[in-house]
Amino acid sequence: MKLTTQENTTNNQSLLKRYNECRQITEEICEPLQPEDFVVQPVAEVSPPKWHLAHTTWFFENFILKDHMPEYKIFDDDYHFLFNSYYETEGERWQRSERGFLTRPWVKEVMAYRDYVDEHMAQFISQTTLSKSIIDVLEIGINHEQQHQELLVYDIKHILGINPLFPTYKTPISKSEEVILDQNFLDVAEGIYSIGYAGENFHFDNEEGEHKAFVHAYRIQDRLITAGEYIEFMEAGGYEDFNFWLMEGFEWAKGEKIKAPFYWFKEGGVWKHYTLGGLEEVNPNEPITHINYYEADAFAKWKGKRLPTEFEWEIACRQYEPTIPESANFLDQRSFRPMPRVGNSTQFFGDVWEWTNSAYAPYPFYQKVDGALGEYNGKFMINQMVLRGGSFATMKNHIRHTYRNFFHPNLRWHFTGLRLAETI
Amino acid sequence: MKLTTQENTTNNQSLLKRYNECRQITEEICEPLQPEDFVVQPVAEVSPPKWHLAHTTWFFENFILKDHMPEYKIFDDDYHFLFNSYYETEGERWQRSERGFLTRPWVKEVMAYRDYVDEHMAQFISQTTLSKSIIDVLEIGINHEQQHQELLVYDIKHILGINPLFPTYKTPISKSEEVILDQNFLDVAEGIYSIGYAGENFHFDNEEGEHKAFVHAYRIQDRLITAGEYIEFMEAGGYEDFNFWLMEGFEWAKGEKIKAPFYWFKEGGVWKHYTLGGLEEVNPNEPITHINYYEADAFAKWKGKRLPTEFEWEIACRQYEPTIPESANFLDQRSFRPMPRVGNSTQFFGDVWEWTNSAYAPYPFYQKVDGALGEYNGKFMINQMVLRGGSFATMKNHIRHTYRNFFHPNLRWHFTGLRLAETI
Amino acid sequence: MKLTTQENTTNNQSLLKRYNECRQITEEICEPLQPEDFVVQPVAEVSPPKWHLAHTTWFFENFILKDHMPEYKIFDDDYHFLFNSYYETEGERWQRSERGFLTRPWVKEVMAYRDYVDEHMAQFISQTTLSKSIIDVLEIGINHEQQHQELLVYDIKHILGINPLFPTYKTPISKSEEVILDQNFLDVAEGIYSIGYAGENFHFDNEEGEHKAFVHAYRIQDRLITAGEYIEFMEAGGYEDFNFWLMEGFEWAKGEKIKAPFYWFKEGGVWKHYTLGGLEEVNPNEPITHINYYEADAFAKWKGKRLPTEFEWEIACRQYEPTIPESANFLDQRSFRPMPRVGNSTQFFGDVWEWTNSAYAPYPFYQKVDGALGEYNGKFMINQMVLRGGSFATMKNHIRHTYRNFFHPNLRWHFTGLRLAETI
Amino acid sequence: MKLTTQENTTNNQSLLKRYNECRQITEEICEPLQPEDFVVQPVAEVSPPKWHLAHTTWFFENFILKDHMPEYKIFDDDYHFLFNSYYETEGERWQRSERGFLTRPWVKEVMAYRDYVDEHMAQFISQTTLSKSIIDVLEIGINHEQQHQELLVYDIKHILGINPLFPTYKTPISKSEEVILDQNFLDVAEGIYSIGYAGENFHFDNEEGEHKAFVHAYRIQDRLITAGEYIEFMEAGGYEDFNFWLMEGFEWAKGEKIKAPFYWFKEGGVWKHYTLGGLEEVNPNEPITHINYYEADAFAKWKGKRLPTEFEWEIACRQYEPTIPESANFLDQRSFRPMPRVGNSTQFFGDVWEWTNSAYAPYPFYQKVDGALGEYNGKFMINQMVLRGGSFATMKNHIRHTYRNFFHPNLRWHFTGLRLAETI
Repeated sequence: MKLTTQENTTNNQSLLKRYNECRQITEEICEPLQPEDFVVQPVAEVSPPKWHLAHTTWFFENFILKDHMPEYKIFDDDYHFLFNSYYETEGERWQRSERGFLTRPWVKEVMAYRDYVDEHMAQFISQTTLSKSIIDVLEIGINHEQQHQELLVYDIKHILGINPLFPTYKTPISKSEEVILDQNFLDVAEGIYSIGYAGENFHFDNEEGEHKAFVHAYRIQDRLITAGEYIEFMEAGGYEDFNFWLMEGFEWAKGEKIKAPFYWFKEGGVWKHYTLGGLEEVNPNEPITHINYYEADAFAKWKGKRLPTEFEWEIACRQYEPTIPESANFLDQRSFRPMPRVGNSTQFFGDVWEWTNSAYAPYPFYQKVDGALGEYNGKFMINQMVLRGGSFATMKNHIRHTYRNFFHPNLRWHFTGLRLAETI
Repeated sequence: MKLTTQENTTNNQSLLKRYNECRQITEEICEPLQPEDFVVQPVAEVSPPKWHLAHTTWFFENFILKDHMPEYKIFDDDYHFLFNSYYETEGERWQRSERGFLTRPWVKEVMAYRDYVDEHMAQFISQTTLSKSIIDVLEIGINHEQQHQELLVYDIKHILGINPLFPTYKTPISKSEEVILDQNFLDVAEGIYSIGYAGENFHFDNEEGEHKAFVHAYRIQDRLITAGEYIEFMEAGGYEDFNFWLMEGFEWAKGEKIKAPFYWFKEGGVWKHYTLGGLEEVNPNEPITHINYYEADAFAKWKGKRLPTEFEWEIACRQYEPTIPESANFLDQRSFRPMPRVGNSTQFFGDVWEWTNSAYAPYPFYQKVDGALGEYNGKFMINQMVLRGGSFATMKNHIRHTYRNFFHPNLRWHFTGLRLAETI
Repeated sequence: MKLTTQENTTNNQSLLKRYNECRQITEEICEPLQPEDFVVQPVAEVSPPKWHLAHTTWFFENFILKDHMPEYKIFDDDYHFLFNSYYETEGERWQRSERGFLTRPWVKEVMAYRDYVDEHMAQFISQTTLSKSIIDVLEIGINHEQQHQELLVYDIKHILGINPLFPTYKTPISKSEEVILDQNFLDVAEGIYSIGYAGENFHFDNEEGEHKAFVHAYRIQDRLITAGEYIEFMEAGGYEDFNFWLMEGFEWAKGEKIKAPFYWFKEGGVWKHYTLGGLEEVNPNEPITHINYYEADAFAKWKGKRLPTEFEWEIACRQYEPTIPESANFLDQRSFRPMPRVGNSTQFFGDVWEWTNSAYAPYPFYQKVDGALGEYNGKFMINQMVLRGGSFATMKNHIRHTYRNFFHPNLRWHFTGLRLAETI
Repeated sequence: MKLTTQENTTNNQSLLKRYNECRQITEEICEPLQPEDFVVQPVAEVSPPKWHLAHTTWFFENFILKDHMPEYKIFDDDYHFLFNSYYETEGERWQRSERGFLTRPWVKEVMAYRDYVDEHMAQFISQTTLSKSIIDVLEIGINHEQQHQELLVYDIKHILGINPLFPTYKTPISKSEEVILDQNFLDVAEGIYSIGYAGENFHFDNEEGEHKAFVHAYRIQDRLITAGEYIEFMEAGGYEDFNFWLMEGFEWAKGEKIKAPFYWFKEGGVWKHYTLGGLEEVNPNEPITHINYYEADAFAKWKGKRLPTEFEWEIACRQYEPTIPESANFLDQRSFRPMPRVGNSTQFFGDVWEWTNSAYAPYPFYQKVDGALGEYNGKFMINQMVLRGGSFATMKNHIRHTYRNFFHPNLRWHFTGLRLAETI
């Protein structure tokens, strides 16, 4: 990721303010949980909330305090082994799939760990002349924790959502009114466009290396696909007709007996789904979510269209939504759900991450940075698909036109959706 | 199991006292735990402590209060689905291997469930003329909960013991002095003996049907095998020499890279093991424990002996230890560990369950009882081996000369050990 | 196994005759096969026919010729690695589950291996004064090959039977007429009986150690259970009613969606099954076969009875069928199927192996022999159930009243069946 | 795939000649095999040779003769079920992973099937006025069989190569002399280039839709990486240093204990590998092969370079090797191995397929064709990487500059290699 870019005049106090706000939001997300909710791991890709709380803290301790604050004493020597995620550079670590077996340290101990590191970070940021490279790591640390905030929302929903008691995480904000959805497409002209991050602010290494790409003329939908449209696909037998599916997707759906998005089931002829506000009837005007790449791709084919590439998404978004709208549905709003489109909102930003038809790959000028942080993005560039635009669980100041999220095509516990595209 | 046997004169008050004591001990066992410890399930055979607390409560609610106390209202309709263990008669249930994914109900809710059921049970026992069949079910319920007390100790040790922080469950009682161990064997003469339960008190259906069995003359060790003797086996290359092993056992050890009992590892040339008192050096005078049937059998063969059959164990125990000694190391003593032999103790009772060379099978007069409780024992009579004598996690009033415990031969998270035998 | 017992006066020529007959029958069994049939392994417990041909040959080469015929030259050094089955004493070996991946040596090379060993064996037996211990190994080798003859029939049926073309192995002998089956039981009095092999002829080590056993009075069915009776069980919902099943069996049947014996399926309302004579309608008068222990046990419980123990089987068989009847349906008859009962035949011998309710365990005086042949039986004495009486794929001169066969309770590709028993 | 393109003037006789040649080469490839070699399937991605022989035949029977030759009679009704590969349109089929369990039909029956279909195809092609759409399917059928010729070579090598006897498939041509390998790179200028097939001849649908792509200036190696260079990587600890690896690749290598290419092992300090000519010392001048995408990518990173994209490969190949050289090492030469570079050969064509850093995805103008043949390519466009250039097992008239092969990144039983690239 970009390790430099901050002005020399960076005000340490504003950095500390951002650090504290970020740390506080993480804890706010966990506030509705009981201690029991913090420890389990129902599937390998979900981590116990306690683990997120500790791992994000370890990131600051390990990459900043340990090496740069001479008087700092490690909080607990065992935590390095327990809370390293995947950094081979940092040595042996507890196996990912067994995070849900660790009852100790307790939540209270983890919170004490957070407090301890926060106090030292406050001291460190306030009293030190921060070098550019340390500011860069601090920025990464904050953005890293924002990514875990989003994962926390995914994982909390999974932990509560597989429970037959369907516990409510938080009563959500009231739903918006009925809306009429047009089927409009936005045109983009053939040409060479600039792709990737070109500015001076923080960004990840995977967006770096502004470069040129040619695209043929295309059209892209001006909004997200809704749950109602997806129900049409289901009711038209979409899950049973192999013609719309990638072979791996069709075998996944048959093998797992999948007939609907994750968290959905039919009761008394009505589609219901578990939401963070509890069990609800599906609102057909909400953006569809909890579908994987296979499902998004099959839906697009059923519609006679396709998913956009990540370049097409980025070019169109820049052209039609040059700045992030105030009203976009991000974690800042605490809606905890995707919201029906209001007016002519393009929905490029917020609500749900949008699957693109682009495999996650390095840009032409991609350079892996040295050391542990070089493991941040590059080593995942295989068998994953790019998603764009952020979701209701993303902080607004975390997202960008050039931001590249990525997941394996079979996963769907995160907040995913799609819009259609076609070559003209 | 035996559904009748109580005298008509049974005093309801004494029954209630036993019920309350039993329920209280279960909670005492959980007292050192944090809420986080109550929910996880590191392997399929371990259940979360919270689940034991609720399941034993559901047993009384479901088999007594629901049908026999007219004014009783079910505490929570979902609990029947969540806390039924394996009774097909009782309908669908949450999958055993996923018990560790349920964070709700919380521990506090489960404790409220216990209180609610305990209150109604107190009322029911105090105010009702209890029929013989209800008393029988109540007896089963108490004995059932005692079995779960023992499982709780196994499972708590597993949950804490796989944690690299090696948390202490409870500081154990001080260890006894060094002892000299003789290698004596007790002789039993050839003949026809009576096997199985013949009295009037509570016992399980699998011990019922007193019957005759012929045994050839044999000798049986007068004490348990110690950790020190087991270390000799290990150091003689016991785990590497197929000659001592059943083929399935040898493949298990090779496949899992097993070189020592569960919870053991070598550090700085010294054998250590996790105990409920925390990490310790192995005391060579303690009975060996946490070995499975394959290991017990291999050890016996290495010694040029064999394991006793369950009949041989029962006959010898009855002959040489006609009553359970006061000093036997049971859960009543809260030692939470097997103890070195004191004096000439036979160690037939308490400390560790003893593997026998008998597959778990029905006795000649075995009759399955009707209804759900008929599923209690009989349906497990395949691929399991019988263990005898109880452990430090067994309540003394739960065990008998005729008591048959049973486990699959590959398991070893429970408190297991052995003594040797040979045909003369 | 019993290593001595042959009279010093054993005639080498008669030994050679028996050796040659045995070897010839193995090849006769394979005669209907095409080269392609010799190499595949559809499940781990099935071995390719080619492997049986070579392994039985390796047995004689390795345990007799290699050490005792000085001028003998090993046919091919690689065969020791390829065709050792499970003898750890004999070193590393090709993995069992991958036997079906070996296309070389071809069948012709394997047949050349057989010829080469047979020539040397003929020379060795004719020209040598055979010591008692060599005669013993030779006896084991012949009996070992007879066991593989039986396995060959199981495995050939499996290989052909899963093929949707349902190829015919061999046109079987014509079926016998309709018969009326009574439901008679044979009484056996309470008492001490002698169990195990006591004579001077060949027998395996697992039958050795004649010893006494007490049995309570019981009754045992005077014939095998038929396919027609089993259909009644199926049609009464036997596979769906957990009350009749061991838990592991019920979970097996549910998990594998088992609703009928192996090789059975319903077509147009009629039960058909693959037989070595091709696809046929089930003849209700034939003994039921291809059921595992779980199914046999469930059937017995559904009938309100139980399976006999292996002691009960042996005692009754000795009492009611003191010598093996001429008419018994063994491999000698080349019927290649179980046959309907004729007259009052007890069917103790031949047709199908009978599941008993006895886990495979050592007898009280069991002694493992030294060396590789000590691995023959003893190391399998866990998690397996004893079967008695032989099948239509057993040579008559291979079986005895005391013969103990054993298989895991979940398997059913072999020729299994049952008769009922009950304690009086 | 392109369903039209043939001139109306196509001479049926030349079509028949090409058909016959293609069919004959398939059989020539199988000529060195024994019947036993035709039936096994050591891993799911390998098919038994017999299956390839029958499946390619079924393709002509099913897509041409069945529908277009009125008097044609299906050879065997069961073959449709047995030899359909993955066409959902064509209904139920035998499971891919169980192809190795089918011993029937025998090889001789399959050869009779081939003869039967060939006779009818000869008749059909000779006597019919072929419509353009039928010619298109015939072209696909021939190209399809050429793909299976290549798979046959992969699969035969796998079947023979895992056999500890290391049988020789065919004595290969003699090796060329030692050569000196330079490290030259070919420059390609930044610009918009045309990608994809634009001509009138046969090509697959996945290359269709000529379109424009922008590439930044780059350099690409003028030859393949050799075994000797790969050994340097191995000896520099390449397999142990996570810095060079994608995370999935590193976990694959650790999990499977991979330390070298497939078929390689070290004996007496020397690297050997199984080749179709038998076991050999590795020739350091031969192109490296049998490495998967993870290994190719790790090697490139170790060299400080990267793999080319498929666009970069196609552009450079067209620029520097505008026509396929006569000397390229294709199946036509029957070398059955990759060959050391001769002179300044670019090695773009033949020898080994080259991994590119491009995920297999649809081109902008990609259109799936209707019917079963629409399943040919499109449904595999996920989780696979593109390879370019053909191998020694490819027919020369099968390959093109625009030809896109694709495999999952973890596979390596096929003939794979790489060349390096870098952005300037």
